[in-house]
This record gives sequence, C-alpha cells and structure tokens, in this order.
Amino acid sequence: MRALEGDQVCMRIFISEGDKVDKKPLYKELLNLLRKEEIAGATVLRGMAGFGAKSHLHTAGLLALSQDLPILIEAVDTQEHLDRVLPKIDAMVGEGLITLEKVHVLRYAPKK
Amino acid sequence: MRALEGDQVCMRIFISEGDKVDKKPLYKELLNLLRKEEIAGATVLRGMAGFGAKSHLHTAGLLALSQDLPILIEAVDTQEHLDRVLPKIDAMVGEGLITLEKVHVLRYAPKK
Amino acid sequence: MRALEGDQVCMRIFISEGDKVDKKPLYKELLNLLRKEEIAGATVLRGMAGFGAKSHLHTAGLLALSQDLPILIEAVDTQEHLDRVLPKIDAMVGEGLITLEKVHVLRYAPKK
Repeated sequence: MRALEGDQVCMRIFISEGDKVDKKPLYKELLNLLRKEEIAGATVLRGMAGFGAKSHLHTAGLLALSQDLPILIEAVDTQEHLDRVLPKIDAMVGEGLITLEKVHVLRYAPKK
Repeated sequence: MRALEGDQVCMRIFISEGDKVDKKPLYKELLNLLRKEEIAGATVLRGMAGFGAKSHLHTAGLLALSQDLPILIEAVDTQEHLDRVLPKIDAMVGEGLITLEKVHVLRYAPKK
Repeated sequence: MRALEGDQVCMRIFISEGDKVDKKPLYKELLNLLRKEEIAGATVLRGMAGFGAKSHLHTAGLLALSQDLPILIEAVDTQEHLDRVLPKIDAMVGEGLITLEKVHVLRYAPKK
C-alpha cells in the first residue's frame, strides 16, 4: 500500500472491446500491464454505444453480442509513475484516445 | 483524422435512459448529433443506479428491465468545437447535468 | 431544484461491488447517503474488470456472477456541500479511492 493522497493524475484510455494486441484483447493486456507496473488502481468500463477516431458507431441493442463496444480504462497515480508507463501503453494502443487530467486524491488506503 | 493532441475539453452529459426527444431516445439522438457534428469521439455509459435533478432514485436489480437508468455520455474535443455544438445539445436535453473539464490529450490517432 | 451552474467539483469514489458497511452493500449505502444529504446528483457505474489498493484483479467474463466487480460512483456538487458530506463517506469506505476534480457545470435544471 502506497500513499497517494494529494494532487495526482487520472489517465483515461478510450479503445474498443474488439481491439487486439498480439491477438489478445487489448483492454486485458492494458490492465495486466497497469497491474504489473504497480499503478495504484484501474477500472475498466464498457460503454453501450459510441464512436471514435474512425467515426464508426458502436452500439449495443440489436448488436448486443458485438465485441466492438467502447471500452474506457481509468487509472489514477502520480504523474511520474504514469509517465514511466505511458510509452508502453502508447506502443500497444492502435486507434484510440488517451487523456490525462488532474485529480485530488483524498483517500487511498484500507481502513486501519 | 484530425490532430487533437494538447489541452482540450471533456464534456460529460448526465441524463436518463428513458429521456426522449421527439419521441426518440435522447442518448441516441445526442450520439447522432455528436457524430454528425464531427466531434472527435463519444462514449455512452449506462449506470446501474443513481439520481439526478428530480432526486428520483434509478436502480437496476429487481428493476433491471427499467428503461430509466442513468446514462453518461462523454465526448472529448476542442473548446471551440464543443462550443459550436453546445447550443444544440442544450436544446435537446431536458432534465440533466452537463459538465466540462480540462483534459490533456496524449494520443488521438490510428497507429501509422 | 438548486442552481449549480459554474465551477464545481466532481467527486469520484472507486470501490468494489462486494464491499459492505453494516452488512449492507456499500455502494447502495453511499447512494442513499448522497441523496439524503441532497447532493445534486450521483451516478453508479459498474466496471467489467479492474484492480485497486489490494491489487486484486476483479474481472467479469467467466466470473460474471462475481459480486466483486469495481464500482465507480460519480457525484457533482459545490466544494462546500461535498466537504460537509466527505467525513461521513470516509467513515463508510474501507479500501477504496476517492478523488475530487474541478468541473464547470453548464446546465443543471429541468427545461422551463
């Protein structure tokens, strides 16, 4: 358990569920990377519709079984820690959007 | 494909799945608008519970078939581009919350 | 209905679906608290995978029935209002991450 309280960064990666890297699902590989690199935490959210750089509309509903819904991965850590991991992330992500935003961490710890 | 790297804006629209505009689902109409206006990308997330301006608690679970779960639409682009589209969005959204926040875009492009 | 337009704060609480407080689901208790305290709005999102302070990988898929997927609660209000509620939230959240970020609220109102 590390201390993380104070001004940190939230990285957000917007990709598609069908994206692959080395024939494996990209979002799983990114999650494995973030854990291996000991990023403080990460959450993978699946969208029900959306579009991205290629302006292709992903949608659930009739296409609910589609494997190309949008995926949003959120991870919070220090700028320095994220900077060390970002080149590896960038090398894995093909089409996609990666954003960084400032957040203030109030709590990152288990209860005593 | 446009360049988008640098300081941009993430717009977030909090509405309900059951919201309509011209008898059509509001979140779909908003997504169509954002795509038509060539916003760089958009993701629609469905919440499992929540409440909003009317303080009505939406919840999944026993009411999993409810069509009134919270919807969050996220879109990233330049301030100028979002400013051009915002009056149209505002005219479509009845009850709802719209926020803007600064983000730093690291990557928005397909792999070369 | 309160006015909320202008510079406000988005609080984000990252917990797990299986977290309990007084043997009740933590995310439901937090949502009830936020509503009782008249926070302007809140949305509960369920992730499909993730890890946190304990670096335990939560994942859907084969474990889709797991009750330990990541939960992200987002709530927007004034800094002052959130400050009043945060000690109560902090007392309820065991392991978890709580962040605050600045947002600009463009709209929080039903259509006239």
